[in-house]
Order: sequence, then structure tokens, then C-alpha cells
Amino acid sequence: MTNSLKIYNTLTRQKETFVPIQEGRVGLYVCGPTVYNDVHMGNCRTFLSFDVIYRYLIHLGYKVRYVRNITDAGHLTDDGDEGEDKISKKARIDQLEPMEIVHKYTMGFRDVMKQFNVLTPNIEPTATGHIVEQIEMTKQILQNGYAYEANGTIYCDVDKLNQLYDYGQLSGRKLDDLYTNTRELDGQSDKRGAFDFALWKKANPEHLQQWQSPWGMGFPGWHLECSAMSRKYLGERFDIHGGGMDLVPIHHTNEIAQSMACCKTTPANYWMHTNMLTVNGTKMSKSLNNAFLPHELFAGSHPLLEQAYSPMTVRFFFLQAHYSSTIDFSNEALQAAEKGYKRLMNAHKSLLQLTHSGNQTAGNNTEDKAVLQLLDECYERMNDDFNTPQTIAVLFELSSKINAYHNKQANLNDLSKDTFDRLITVFTSFITNVLGLLDETTTADNGITEGLMQLVLQMRTDARNRKDWLTSDIIRDRLNDLKITVKDGKDGTTWGVD
Amino acid sequence: MTNSLKIYNTLTRQKETFVPIQEGRVGLYVCGPTVYNDVHMGNCRTFLSFDVIYRYLIHLGYKVRYVRNITDAGHLTDDGDEGEDKISKKARIDQLEPMEIVHKYTMGFRDVMKQFNVLTPNIEPTATGHIVEQIEMTKQILQNGYAYEANGTIYCDVDKLNQLYDYGQLSGRKLDDLYTNTRELDGQSDKRGAFDFALWKKANPEHLQQWQSPWGMGFPGWHLECSAMSRKYLGERFDIHGGGMDLVPIHHTNEIAQSMACCKTTPANYWMHTNMLTVNGTKMSKSLNNAFLPHELFAGSHPLLEQAYSPMTVRFFFLQAHYSSTIDFSNEALQAAEKGYKRLMNAHKSLLQLTHSGNQTAGNNTEDKAVLQLLDECYERMNDDFNTPQTIAVLFELSSKINAYHNKQANLNDLSKDTFDRLITVFTSFITNVLGLLDETTTADNGITEGLMQLVLQMRTDARNRKDWLTSDIIRDRLNDLKITVKDGKDGTTWGVD
Repeated sequence: MTNSLKIYNTLTRQKETFVPIQEGRVGLYVCGPTVYNDVHMGNCRTFLSFDVIYRYLIHLGYKVRYVRNITDAGHLTDDGDEGEDKISKKARIDQLEPMEIVHKYTMGFRDVMKQFNVLTPNIEPTATGHIVEQIEMTKQILQNGYAYEANGTIYCDVDKLNQLYDYGQLSGRKLDDLYTNTRELDGQSDKRGAFDFALWKKANPEHLQQWQSPWGMGFPGWHLECSAMSRKYLGERFDIHGGGMDLVPIHHTNEIAQSMACCKTTPANYWMHTNMLTVNGTKMSKSLNNAFLPHELFAGSHPLLEQAYSPMTVRFFFLQAHYSSTIDFSNEALQAAEKGYKRLMNAHKSLLQLTHSGNQTAGNNTEDKAVLQLLDECYERMNDDFNTPQTIAVLFELSSKINAYHNKQANLNDLSKDTFDRLITVFTSFITNVLGLLDETTTADNGITEGLMQLVLQMRTDARNRKDWLTSDIIRDRLNDLKITVKDGKDGTTWGVD
Repeated sequence: MTNSLKIYNTLTRQKETFVPIQEGRVGLYVCGPTVYNDVHMGNCRTFLSFDVIYRYLIHLGYKVRYVRNITDAGHLTDDGDEGEDKISKKARIDQLEPMEIVHKYTMGFRDVMKQFNVLTPNIEPTATGHIVEQIEMTKQILQNGYAYEANGTIYCDVDKLNQLYDYGQLSGRKLDDLYTNTRELDGQSDKRGAFDFALWKKANPEHLQQWQSPWGMGFPGWHLECSAMSRKYLGERFDIHGGGMDLVPIHHTNEIAQSMACCKTTPANYWMHTNMLTVNGTKMSKSLNNAFLPHELFAGSHPLLEQAYSPMTVRFFFLQAHYSSTIDFSNEALQAAEKGYKRLMNAHKSLLQLTHSGNQTAGNNTEDKAVLQLLDECYERMNDDFNTPQTIAVLFELSSKINAYHNKQANLNDLSKDTFDRLITVFTSFITNVLGLLDETTTADNGITEGLMQLVLQMRTDARNRKDWLTSDIIRDRLNDLKITVKDGKDGTTWGVD
């Protein structure tokens, strides 16, 4: 555990030293997907970013309770109080029960997360699983005087709340300014103020998902679930709340409003937001036909994609940008990521093949210090608001050193045994535990592929030794067909799949 | 779709022709796991049995809505109204939040189901996700006069219900007889009758999972969730309700009681129950140290296991017994299942390699009729209360025929083209879609293993042709090391992993 971790806090607009509420423990809440369709790449980026944050906190020794919800009711098509429920709409179109839609896309979401090697959170609570808690929270807000009922719907009274605290703090916009830029209520609405929002909505008889409440049949507002669930599992005030930056102006702003109205506290100390994706410099959107899905990336089946990109290539691609920067999808960038990912994994393989003499005294203090310095830098970069691109840059520097040791261009025994051991530990931890990169060439086939490959390589050597060029040509061509690359190095022959 | 499907109905104690409530559709509810520990093999058998039932119904053309719940609250350690909540107890021991326990074991359960190639149901609802529905059902039962409140707990009044219908119908025991064999209430209980059971239980302040209700803070009784969820997703009366046979006397009996008390109907038309597992003739139990877990079977890591058994071997082993019979785990039986599974899969591979002359007229009417007869028998056996062992016996007879065609011991062109096509369609459907058997030798490595193997086989042939016995011996020995068996047949060389 270290005190030097710094996090950029959207709430205060500055990097702050991370101080957990309870020493050694972190409560982390991230807004999860609304499960009405296949998870899109923008969402994947958010969950992958927080996966690395979660992994690094664990690596630092924190005991983390990570809660990421599943929105399975109440999220309307306009992301506000109007429009149809996203899940009900999909259920109507597909002629299915809403919970069939929910189950299908929840399972699909989890499969994609698994492909990306995203760790499952500790709790994945659902909106429908917390109706009672949401009703109770609404009752408390009503009792506290920060909400009102109108025709069976309960609205949060934002103007009144704004007297208690600055409603626009998270988005950095004063409520007065927001009013200036908003058209007035048209008189059709039951809302008293244009920024009031529904905690609980009255359901029409045809609304598919509805529950009994003290105010008749209805359903929870989208923002309420996160407040009710984070409170239940992390307490009224916890450490880190995260999500995509599109959630800042409304969803997260209203979560804070609900917590202030119910518990007189802002729910989280640190608010972290991930940035958006673009494709070839343009916003990713269904209407522009550039919003490819994970399985399209993995199969290379979208017209904009020149080839398939593996889950680990895409994971690496995301990590090459800071979570708070935009990132642009292009074939060039993905192909570069593919190379970078392989370079890192190959260096790791080479590292594990190195054997140190066991000599404790460093033969070359400059080299020893340089490696120790790079290992410390891995932590420094991650401690600087989880800066994965800079961390990867350091890992690349280390890779060059490892390759030099491996190719005998540099002398491994210039490192002390302790430094060598630390190199193995830190490099391995950062690649596998922190960045969460899996070696995709290792298939779970009980070593059959590796065993066959070793046999083929032996046949190749034997053929060469007896100058049987026909056989060695056949082997070369067949391996080419299988996209297997063989490299003959000083320490033997290695192979990989392109 | 066929009208000849027969199902043994626990409720009527006879095989009945299956007639769905709505033509072409089936509503199926199966009691799922309580997610407080790793799923045990007995549960796996139940879910695997219903997986085949679900698959066969789909194969017959029914549109099935399959609901299998996850019990994440309210299941007490005595399976009744006494004892600690199973999930809360585990949470207390592991010092975790109950929903962390729930999430961990739900994810683990799904992983195991995936390993067994069990299809996910259409909806997997949770008890905590339906607190409102359970409260509403309790209110209705109170209103109907079949329940009473005592100190914040609501009990179902079984004596009164027994005047409406025969409470003991499912278990085949009259309530009067049950009373005769039961000790009287000790005066400590709030229950009026010994068979009354809690719909809603008052929670002590220290109870970990509790919700606000019209009767104060409490939690639902275990039986209530299934009634509330089956009603919500399948209606007040649906087609098939299933589960392990241990659920008959209390859990399912009380589900019927709740439906009668609330809706004046028994919830399901057909009640199906799977039988128990034994190990070397003894009941499987933790205290006897013979209750191995799925991963112990797959790794062969339990002292009672002589080797590892793959998921498909275990799946096949289960299917070799009728779901309503006991089944005994032993190394001999599992090893026999491993052979049987491979025999079936190899026959299927051979079938797909056969080429028919395309001649429509059968050359040999006896052979053609025999094959058609066997294909019909596959359906007849499954239509007879999903008799998988007899279906497998028929598939073995077909395998013998396929092998004979493959080895040229019989003439494939004795079959008409239509019969051959039907053989491929039905045999493939039964193995993959109905029995749900996967080919475990095919790994998802983009054909690399197969490609390498073909290259090795070519090297082997070349070595033999040039009488290079050293090389062919090396290849033989290395393949042996990898447990790869090669068979040279008339139609070429096939290979498989032992």
C-alpha cells in the first residue's frame, strides 16, 4: 500500500492524493450497463479502465469492495424522465418478457467481459433487485422535504436542494446558468422546476415492468438505483465512484442530489470518469455505421475493419491511452497495438527463460540502478492517476533490456540476484495482474499444441541436418498456412501465432 | 412437434401424455441452486437432466420459456422455518457482505453449467429481486384467509388449506397421517399447526438480509420465492415444474399450498423430479468425505477418484441413467462412460466423413428399413419420459452401423440417399442438440492443432515411405507422450486424444 497514489477528481477538478475512508480498504462503485442490447465498445472501454484501476488497487494491497450494477429497469430512452423504458421497448419489439431481454444481454455482457479478461466485481446488483430499497430512499427524501408527489410520480426538488449545496458542482455549471440555457417548462409537465427529476415514476397500465409502491404502481427513476445500491453495499459515503464521462451532467449529478437529499452527504469522495471513443476521428454512432461490437472486432467482420483483432490486442489498445483521454479506433492504431502487445508478451516469455548466475553483487552498478529505477517508475506512472500509457512505455524500456539479456547483447549478470528477482516479480505482476494481459498463444489444450509444435520443430531440424530441403520446405509452408512464425535465436527456437 | 410425448407426473403418479396449456409453447420452471457454496454434483445432475428435457422440447419444436431461479435469500439451514439463513451464515463466516457470497457462487455456478454445456435458461430470477412480488403474494394469501400474522411473521394456515384440497397430494401422504408421525408443537412456536410454514419471517436486528414490509422488517420464506417468480414469469398455471426429489415433501408441497391459497390453483400441470446420486453405493455427503465437487472430478483431485473425468464424460455418465433413477458414482462406471462417450463421438465423426453415391433407390430394403426404424426409436425412447439411457442404446446401435459403413464391412449404398440424409440429421441432432454432447477433442484454437497434426501425419507417412524407422519411431513416441492415438483405416488416418 502506498500513500502516493493520486487520482483526478472530477468533483474538485484536480489531482488529489488518495486517502481511503477506512485504512487499507476501498469502496468502489461503477455504473454498469443497461442490458437491452449488446454491450458497445464505449462501455467496454469504461469497464476495462476500471478493471485496471480495481486491479491496481488490489495490487497495492487494498481490500477493495467493487460494486458494478446492472440496469435492468427504469432507464428511459432519453436518459431522463421522458421516452420509453429501454428494456421494455426491446422486449416489445422482440416479443419477449423484459426479464428474458435482461438475462440474455446480462449473460452476453459477462461473456464479453470475460473475453477481455475483466475481473468480475464483488457485487453486481440489479435495479429490479432493489425496488424496496429505492422505495425506502424515496420515502426518506420525501420526509426530508426534498421531493414532492405529483400524480403518482415523486420528483426530486432541485431548486430546494440547490439551497443546501451547489447542485452543479460535478458538471461545473451553476444551476442559474443552466436555467438560462434551458427552455421553460411547457405547462404540460408536473415538474415544478426544469431540473427536477423523477425518483419514482407512475406506471401506465401498459408499462411492462412495474411494482406496488406507497404511491401506486410504478417504477424507479434511473438515477435512484445507483444511489440505493451504493448506499446499501458501500455505505452513505464511500471512496470512489466511476463511470463514463457522459454520465456527469445528469446521472451522476442527480446521484449526488439524491444522496444530499436523503443522507445530507455527497456519496463518494473521488469521482472518476472515462473518456469517449472515436472511429477514424469521428464519433462512434449507430447512424454512422461505425459502432462495431466486440464480436465484430474479434472476427474482423465489420466493413471498417481490415482484419480481426484479438481481445488482448483491443485491451492493450485501450490501455495505450489514459482513461481520461479520447481514443481513436483505426486499423493502423489497432495493428500497432497488436505489435506492442506481442512485443510485451514476448519479452515476458524471454524473461522467464533467463537464468541468473545467482551472484548477489551487481557487476555493473549503472545497469542495476537503471533497472531498479525503471521498476520504480512502473509504480510512479500508475500512481499518477493510473497512467497506463506511460506505464506501458516503461515496460517497453524494460522489454528492450530483457531482449538484450536474452540475445546476449547485454550481460544479465550485471544485475544483482535481488534486482533480477524484482524484475521478474514486478514485470510479471504489471503484465498479468495490473494490466490484466493474457498470453493468447497458450490455449487450454493440455499442452497438445505446444507438444506437436516441438515435434514439428524437431522434424525441421532433423530434415535440415540431413539436407532434406523438400521436407523442410513442406514444414515451412504448412506453418505459414497456419500463420505460425518460427524464430531461431541464440538460445533456441521460439514460435508464435501471428 | 409430436403428441406422443409422455411425462411421469409426480402429482398423479403416472405417465401422462404431455398436453401444453398453449399449443406449441411450454412454460418450464425448475428450482435452482441456493448460492452459498460451490454447486454439488447432486444439483448438477438435476440441472443437467432438465437441460436435456429443455433441449428435447425445443427439438420437438416447442417455444419454451425456461425459468430457473437463484435462491439468494431466505433459505434456512434446516430447509424449513428454523435455523440460520444459509447465505448469511456463510457471509458471517467469510466476513463478507451476503451479496458478495451470492455473486461469487452465482458466477461459479454458471461457469460449471457452461463446462457441462448446460444451456442457460431464459430467465434466472433471484429471491432478492422479487421482494415486492413476495410481499404482494403474502398480502393476497392473508386477504384470502389462508394465512395469519404472529409477532411480525406470516404463516400459511395448512389445516385450513387442507379443507380446500389435499395438502399431501404431491408427496402422497395425507395430512392426518403426517400429524400422526409428528411431535406436537412445544408451545414455544407461534404456529397454530405443526405444518404451517412461514410466508414472511420477522427479522431480528442482527439478521443480515432484511426488507421493509407491511409487517415490519423481515425476509421471505424460502418456498414463497418460487411461487412468486413462477407466477410472474409463467402465469398462475403453467406446464412443467421440476426439481430434485428431495424438494417434494416440503418445498414443492408448500409451493402448491401457496398457489392454492393465493390463486386457487395448483401452479403446474406436470411435476417432474430427479433422483439422487450415490458414491460406491453410499449416499453422497460431506461428512462421509465422498461429496466431490465438479472441479475435483474434472481434475481427478479427490482421493476417491482414480483419474480425471472430463465434463462431457460426466455429462454422458448422467445421461446413461434415467433422470428418475438413482445413479452411482464409481471409477468403473465413469471409465465406462468415458469409453461410451468417445464411441459415440467417434461414430459421429465417421458419419460426417461418409459419402453416399447419391442413389435414391435403396439397394437393400432390409438395411434401409432397419436404419429408419432405429432413427424412429430415438424419438420413441425420448418421448417415453425422456428416457436418455434407452436413447443412447439406440444411438450405439446406429454407431455400430456407421462404423460398419466406415470400415466397408457394410455397404453404405444399401441406404437410399433420403435415409442417409436422415441418418446424418437425426444422429447429429440427438448428439449435439438433444443430449448436448460437445466434441472435446476440438479446441477453439482456429484449427492450429488439427493443422499441426496433419503435418505430423504427413511427416510420418513420408518417413515410412523412405523407410526412415528412426523418425517414425520418434513421431510414434512423442504422440504417445501427448496421449494422441492414431488409427489407420481404409479411408485414411484418423486421430484422437485419449
